[in-house]
Amino acid sequence: MIKIAVDAMGGDAAPHSEVLGVIQAVQEYPVGVILVGAEDRLREELKRHKAAGLPIEIVHASEVISMGEAVSTAVRKKKDSSIRVAAKLVRDGKANGVVSAGNTGACMAVTKLVIGALSTVDRPALAAVMPTARNRPVVLIDVGANVDCKPSHLAQFAIMGEIFSRSALGNSRPKVGLLSIGEEESKGNELTKEVFQVLKASPLNFVGNVEGRDLFKGDVDVVVCDGFIGNVALKLSEGLTEMFSTMLKKDLSTHLSSQIGALLSRRAFRNFKARVDYSEYGGAPLLGVRGIVIICHGRSPAKAIKNAIRVAHECCAGRVNQRIEDEIKALSFMQRNASASVMLN
Amino acid sequence: MIKIAVDAMGGDAAPHSEVLGVIQAVQEYPVGVILVGAEDRLREELKRHKAAGLPIEIVHASEVISMGEAVSTAVRKKKDSSIRVAAKLVRDGKANGVVSAGNTGACMAVTKLVIGALSTVDRPALAAVMPTARNRPVVLIDVGANVDCKPSHLAQFAIMGEIFSRSALGNSRPKVGLLSIGEEESKGNELTKEVFQVLKASPLNFVGNVEGRDLFKGDVDVVVCDGFIGNVALKLSEGLTEMFSTMLKKDLSTHLSSQIGALLSRRAFRNFKARVDYSEYGGAPLLGVRGIVIICHGRSPAKAIKNAIRVAHECCAGRVNQRIEDEIKALSFMQRNASASVMLN
Repeated sequence: MIKIAVDAMGGDAAPHSEVLGVIQAVQEYPVGVILVGAEDRLREELKRHKAAGLPIEIVHASEVISMGEAVSTAVRKKKDSSIRVAAKLVRDGKANGVVSAGNTGACMAVTKLVIGALSTVDRPALAAVMPTARNRPVVLIDVGANVDCKPSHLAQFAIMGEIFSRSALGNSRPKVGLLSIGEEESKGNELTKEVFQVLKASPLNFVGNVEGRDLFKGDVDVVVCDGFIGNVALKLSEGLTEMFSTMLKKDLSTHLSSQIGALLSRRAFRNFKARVDYSEYGGAPLLGVRGIVIICHGRSPAKAIKNAIRVAHECCAGRVNQRIEDEIKALSFMQRNASASVMLN
Repeated sequence: MIKIAVDAMGGDAAPHSEVLGVIQAVQEYPVGVILVGAEDRLREELKRHKAAGLPIEIVHASEVISMGEAVSTAVRKKKDSSIRVAAKLVRDGKANGVVSAGNTGACMAVTKLVIGALSTVDRPALAAVMPTARNRPVVLIDVGANVDCKPSHLAQFAIMGEIFSRSALGNSRPKVGLLSIGEEESKGNELTKEVFQVLKASPLNFVGNVEGRDLFKGDVDVVVCDGFIGNVALKLSEGLTEMFSTMLKKDLSTHLSSQIGALLSRRAFRNFKARVDYSEYGGAPLLGVRGIVIICHGRSPAKAIKNAIRVAHECCAGRVNQRIEDEIKALSFMQRNASASVMLN
């Protein structure tokens, strides 16, 4: 049975949301979970939910890396943090993957350090699964693990994102785009122009440049970019969504003052929120490490934790990492051959 | 009297919106306008609005660069395009500025080519004036004129954006931020880390890094970035706003089916749209050229054209270009002295 280690102490409502999400996950999916964190608190939570008999174990961790904590010191000093203990379970072969709703920077740093990158991967990358207008999520990769990327890094991001889209989101032949500032091949900066040529020559279903405006249209399944751009894009989208929600709530309550109006507006608003809800897709996979790592939003409710476990399970079952190794090897081989034939001519 | 040349043929609803906006502008502000475009059509439009006696002249241009047209060929071949004739009026001292709702890329290329950059400016930059949650717009610069920028370019963008914020938006001491992926000084990519040090040492009111999430909070007045990032950010915001509006309209009409509900929702929706409306700020100034250039959205209604003329007038009256020349000179002088003193020590 596939086993996922869940950092039970990371999120804003930890360990409550984590434990509830874990219970729902093991009931719905053929997966076992190791809850990592303060043992007493976790036993207590499990007892409250009558979880006896479910495939849930507990492994103790005495420390927690908090949200505001500086990543570098936390990683160095907290040797018994819940995320680190969870990552060790993967390193030691006791779990196949990790799910955490903790400090994103710390999760990335710790899992990269403890579990390590796949042998063919230069830089593991964080992928965000974002809702679109067509109820068909788009995978944006990288959203913050790497800055100052080289073209070869983005080519690897494309492969990893594409495999994730196939395995976890069920797209049989995902369309892969490159985030840029114009649709034409000639548009972009030095980096994207080089990457364009690499992706065009690759076996991927590459559809060319995608502009910021078209990211959320739902026409493309995977969009590749440098981690600086991706992180700005992700956070900007979150900020805008929050601003719209706040404004809308205020405007609706101002104008729809009667009780019926308030009821109706609440319903419309709930629908609106549901469509821009990230929790459906669980969290952001950190792709390219020797194990499956899904990093959830700090405010993840139980549903997001449950879905993150589902996604982790699908990645394990779909042998995502084996595929990443194979396809990156194939691309490198293809590129070596191409440059060799250029040299011969 | 300050005179603005208005490219009357550029926008999606040209010349109707342009002519109407111009008439409103000259009635409200102490400004004269030269309408540039197909003379017959412009005379006809003016007649329809009974604009006799207003300070509006017409200068004929036989060609138009359309929205979808490739910039490079349009710039090379259409020597009598309305935007080019308008730019020539500025070059020849017959107008102080240009307003256009045409093809943004073509407007930038033509005005840079015909009018030229200010002597101290390495790269003119396009600034977007965007609404925030606090009804206090933020200036994002550069949003697409320049990619692969050097730190010195971003420092100049900061100065230009700050002067625009003071002159056209009435901020006496604008807060200037740097778009990055973390608030700490150590966060960002190679470019932003270098720019951080330059801005920190400058006389600007530099408030440090600004994350994508905080761009629309209204806490910062000017946010500086490379044109690739800025363009992705701008278009992504436009795309998201459009997506939200569409979804919201649909959801509200589904849930508020009674006539009263529909009326109420229309009102709430109108309010919502008004708060994310760009037309209040007229358009995007291209800063750093020898004249004032304001580029409006292709879909600009008359109100946006009117406001763009107001902004152009304020920039002229506020001697924005003289200030840009002086302050960039002062910064270069300061930096030369700083490096000289480093060498002496």
